[in-house]
Amino acid sequence: MKTIYYFSLLSFTLSLFINCKQQTSHQEPASAEVTDPLPSWNEGVTKSAIIKFVNNVTEEDSPNFVDVEDRVATFDNDGNLWSEQPYYFQLAFAMDRIKALSEEHPEWSTEQPFKGVLEGDIEAVLKTGTHGLLELVMASHSGMTAEEFDNIVANWLASAKHPRFDQPYQKLVYQPMLELLDYLRANDFKTYIVSGGGVEFMRVWAPEAYGIPENQIVGSSIKTVFEYSDGEAVIRRLPELDFIDDKEGKPIGIHKFIGKKPIFASGNSDGDLQMLQYTDSNELPSFQLYLHHTDAEREWAYDRESHIGRLDKGLDEASAKGWTVIDMKQDWKVVYPFQMN
Amino acid sequence: MKTIYYFSLLSFTLSLFINCKQQTSHQEPASAEVTDPLPSWNEGVTKSAIIKFVNNVTEEDSPNFVDVEDRVATFDNDGNLWSEQPYYFQLAFAMDRIKALSEEHPEWSTEQPFKGVLEGDIEAVLKTGTHGLLELVMASHSGMTAEEFDNIVANWLASAKHPRFDQPYQKLVYQPMLELLDYLRANDFKTYIVSGGGVEFMRVWAPEAYGIPENQIVGSSIKTVFEYSDGEAVIRRLPELDFIDDKEGKPIGIHKFIGKKPIFASGNSDGDLQMLQYTDSNELPSFQLYLHHTDAEREWAYDRESHIGRLDKGLDEASAKGWTVIDMKQDWKVVYPFQMN
Repeated sequence: MKTIYYFSLLSFTLSLFINCKQQTSHQEPASAEVTDPLPSWNEGVTKSAIIKFVNNVTEEDSPNFVDVEDRVATFDNDGNLWSEQPYYFQLAFAMDRIKALSEEHPEWSTEQPFKGVLEGDIEAVLKTGTHGLLELVMASHSGMTAEEFDNIVANWLASAKHPRFDQPYQKLVYQPMLELLDYLRANDFKTYIVSGGGVEFMRVWAPEAYGIPENQIVGSSIKTVFEYSDGEAVIRRLPELDFIDDKEGKPIGIHKFIGKKPIFASGNSDGDLQMLQYTDSNELPSFQLYLHHTDAEREWAYDRESHIGRLDKGLDEASAKGWTVIDMKQDWKVVYPFQMN
Repeated sequence: MKTIYYFSLLSFTLSLFINCKQQTSHQEPASAEVTDPLPSWNEGVTKSAIIKFVNNVTEEDSPNFVDVEDRVATFDNDGNLWSEQPYYFQLAFAMDRIKALSEEHPEWSTEQPFKGVLEGDIEAVLKTGTHGLLELVMASHSGMTAEEFDNIVANWLASAKHPRFDQPYQKLVYQPMLELLDYLRANDFKTYIVSGGGVEFMRVWAPEAYGIPENQIVGSSIKTVFEYSDGEAVIRRLPELDFIDDKEGKPIGIHKFIGKKPIFASGNSDGDLQMLQYTDSNELPSFQLYLHHTDAEREWAYDRESHIGRLDKGLDEASAKGWTVIDMKQDWKVVYPFQMN
């Protein structure tokens, strides 16, 4: 039970967290009609529902045709475009960063949550609760300039490896979702990330990983300040929360950064529920997609009881409203690009 | 002196304000080489400097070539893309809104700043200072849902007229700046608005007026909350400031919403100075452009002493750093589209 509690704190506070820098091939389907636009998806109701919706809103003679400027698609990131187990990848980054900074902070060897991080005692870290986890975020994500932070994240991505797959974190993106992003863009959708993860953390690697530009990435943020002297202009990161882009924060973030209600929303946890509700309330035809993690062998299997990426209320609401639910094990031929050959 | 003080408050607090809904022809210059891309600009150093910079960063064999994804151009709005005199158009909207709401608020007939608005006594309104002006913003811009607010702004634009020109406010956009926006986009720049004005106010009309989509409009904002019941999902506007996108706020807003340092920045007041400094610090080649209001006959003439759109430090810094300054009277053949024939 304690573990559940701590992981709930984790999943709440560390909606600030995530991760990746990925060499992906963004295939341009030469013709969405002739070529299979979703080759890593098994035939079935999920794939059919997606293609039917896209045809329905893009075919010019369709009564449900949606203008190009209204084709807004929003995607959660952690556990939706890349994995999030055994805990958010941005937390792995934060803990590695604490270790890298520890020489400058001898006091950390006796103070939690830093002591736990340095000794690899995750239980001790989690026992410090929300306050302790926020301390980790602030110590690892603030103080430096925005440019310095970008470099720190890029360097971490170049060296860190996921413990289970022994792959760089940014290799743990989902091949079928890369195809879905490409497919939507080929049909003139504008694709956005709307994630609880830190926006500046994502902007380092997500543009290359997903083909989504910096200004189409919405996430949690800390406050910053502008500093100017002798022609040098920098943005410095402050140890203060600015915006949490999770749960109710997701529609608020969409409204603030995108300024339009999506017609397509894709998520995998209860933290995405409000985004799907918001999209479902669109007067235009809309599509709600949940990814259900059912594949312990190739990825992970978790839902209602999970401490990270819990999908409980969302499953019920998807069922009640007829939203589309991806069964990872059934619907995906492959999970990660590195498993393809 | 008092007036100066009050207008300073105005210009500070009402960095929340602005306005326009414009039928513009966004000409696609078929060939930027053959056709004049800036036909409403007189030949001279300003026009030459703009074209030279664009060629310099876009010609493939140029040593200063800039990749398409780094071609970010940011434009202030008030006094830069449309007029801002005799006061910000968004303040005109706020005052008209107060009048429209006054029947539901009998107490306003005796309370400032509302009494002043209802009696047309601007001096009395301004005497209430920052606090009073914030009261006006909150009473006129909050309480309703985002969708309701959009409709209120759209209805106002459809009926309100500018006192000097007897034209809808959204007709007071600058023809030469429309051409500049088109010219940059034809050269694969992504164009953004970065304004002290309210972001939701601008998003109603600016996409049509300038060809800039909702998610490329950065501005000041108030807080919102997500409300959901029985399948109805709305964003409600709260009477609380969220972000002021002015002065130091402009580079912070650029970093937050765009996530990239611009290579082209265009403004007209000291409120834009930090945006131009930030852009000037780009390691890539960059261009800084100030619009100097020198044309009392066709528009207005104001700079160092102005209460709205003051350009004082900015003029000095432009001179010291060799930034390009548009002399409206000299450089523009025409100001507004309605003056063209």
